[in-house]
Amino acid sequence: MTGNEIRLSQYVQKTEAALDTALPKEGGTLVREAMLYSLLGSGKRIRAALVLEFARLGGAAESQALPLACAVEMIHAYSLIHDDLPCMDNDDFRRGQPSCHKKFGEACALLAGDGLLTLAFETAAGAPLPGEAKARTIAELAKAAGWQGMIGGQMMDLDAENHEIPLETLQKLYAMKTGELLRVSALLGCIAADASEIETIAQNYTSAIGMAFQITDDILDVTGNTEKLGKPIGSDKENGKSTYVSLLGLENAKKEACRQIQLARLQAEKLEDSGFLIWLADLILNRDH
Amino acid sequence: MTGNEIRLSQYVQKTEAALDTALPKEGGTLVREAMLYSLLGSGKRIRAALVLEFARLGGAAESQALPLACAVEMIHAYSLIHDDLPCMDNDDFRRGQPSCHKKFGEACALLAGDGLLTLAFETAAGAPLPGEAKARTIAELAKAAGWQGMIGGQMMDLDAENHEIPLETLQKLYAMKTGELLRVSALLGCIAADASEIETIAQNYTSAIGMAFQITDDILDVTGNTEKLGKPIGSDKENGKSTYVSLLGLENAKKEACRQIQLARLQAEKLEDSGFLIWLADLILNRDH
Repeated sequence: MTGNEIRLSQYVQKTEAALDTALPKEGGTLVREAMLYSLLGSGKRIRAALVLEFARLGGAAESQALPLACAVEMIHAYSLIHDDLPCMDNDDFRRGQPSCHKKFGEACALLAGDGLLTLAFETAAGAPLPGEAKARTIAELAKAAGWQGMIGGQMMDLDAENHEIPLETLQKLYAMKTGELLRVSALLGCIAADASEIETIAQNYTSAIGMAFQITDDILDVTGNTEKLGKPIGSDKENGKSTYVSLLGLENAKKEACRQIQLARLQAEKLEDSGFLIWLADLILNRDH
Repeated sequence: MTGNEIRLSQYVQKTEAALDTALPKEGGTLVREAMLYSLLGSGKRIRAALVLEFARLGGAAESQALPLACAVEMIHAYSLIHDDLPCMDNDDFRRGQPSCHKKFGEACALLAGDGLLTLAFETAAGAPLPGEAKARTIAELAKAAGWQGMIGGQMMDLDAENHEIPLETLQKLYAMKTGELLRVSALLGCIAADASEIETIAQNYTSAIGMAFQITDDILDVTGNTEKLGKPIGSDKENGKSTYVSLLGLENAKKEACRQIQLARLQAEKLEDSGFLIWLADLILNRDH
């Protein structure tokens, strides 16, 4: 393992351990079990890593940022549960496992999503940070995840089914649906560190890798491997979705993903000790799942 | 109008005005419109009134507590949207109007509920209160609304369909599903006022009126008027739900509701200037919708 791989795996490990204590293994109703199932499914924890890396770059203690890393992962997990529901994307599988509603039933999955969204704010409110900083993290997180951010992007995504949309609309959709939560993850790390001087760089960097991430998703839906992805390929076309590939063609989509990663690198290079961020950007571009 | 009626209507008016500014009339996607539709439906705003009255009793400025009043109403509205969805109670009507998913479609209603839950925390985080107080309101609100509170109660409610449950289980279900959000509403008012000395009274009072409220719901489902209730009566029996009426009989259910209101009065009487709280408790007992 390289130093960057070790750092990422430490971030993942520490986040998983913190998530593990945020939600008990016993008690309550089936909702708790469904929350746990989706929260501890093997996500890549990119959002948590962004929180923790920007907290480190800004000079925060890791313990101050860990609850925020958990909060963004909870919001990510909730969004996937609700996204998979029959009235949304109707996906039976998620990361190669039955989706939450296939395993626990629709009502329980709906409530598990609600529960994770709620727990995210409870967890952020418990971070060992000054009160004002905590209130700001919650306001920023809610705005990024809300109707003007991720939720708005999900609505745009639904509206965009079965007809072609212009590239500018697709860009806005991706920026809201995926970009906002990545952006706020980096911002939360900066807030935990009280490092306002790196907030703009952090947000520009993550907006660019967010766009690259989403374009790579479009590419993998055409060129990917079902087994590695843990989901069928070709689903975008089947669902009549416009993608970077359908609008620009495969080669231009690849070029645009590269361009976004270049933008991210330029931002990262403004920081000292940005090797991990540059490596992470390349990882997102070159992933196969 | 009596003084108490005037006070309640002022609380309602101020809350509606504050809700009106919390969510713009234009912009964004259809989700915003669906959020607004459910948020501004003619609710009784009991939860907001509890926030504002306990804030007043504790000595807070109303402007400090209003964002918290909005937050609890947003959480209440979200819970009703998700509760009405086909995979939950499958209700086509709410307060005499088409339920959110009947008007906007299931996917949009799901997202509108998510959006209101998220906006609740954003709104609370924007209250003009010291940072530590804000963080505490958010932690308390999330805990009361989460898997150990309201959401857990909704899961218990689903599990309790089509078979009889013991009275103790029903009590716990009601305390979680309805009681927790009422309890935390009063607590939030106390926190806004930094009045820790009345927190216990506030929570005991609202737990009792919450139980009375839910028992009265059971009673109205048998004795009520469809037009006034804005929903069909007899739905509990149809859905095979245990209620205070089905378990104890109508007369004993009425007695238990009275007993809870007596408990609430005893708590309120420990406070000076508690006329409004006593009047509100009686209002909950004697409501016909």
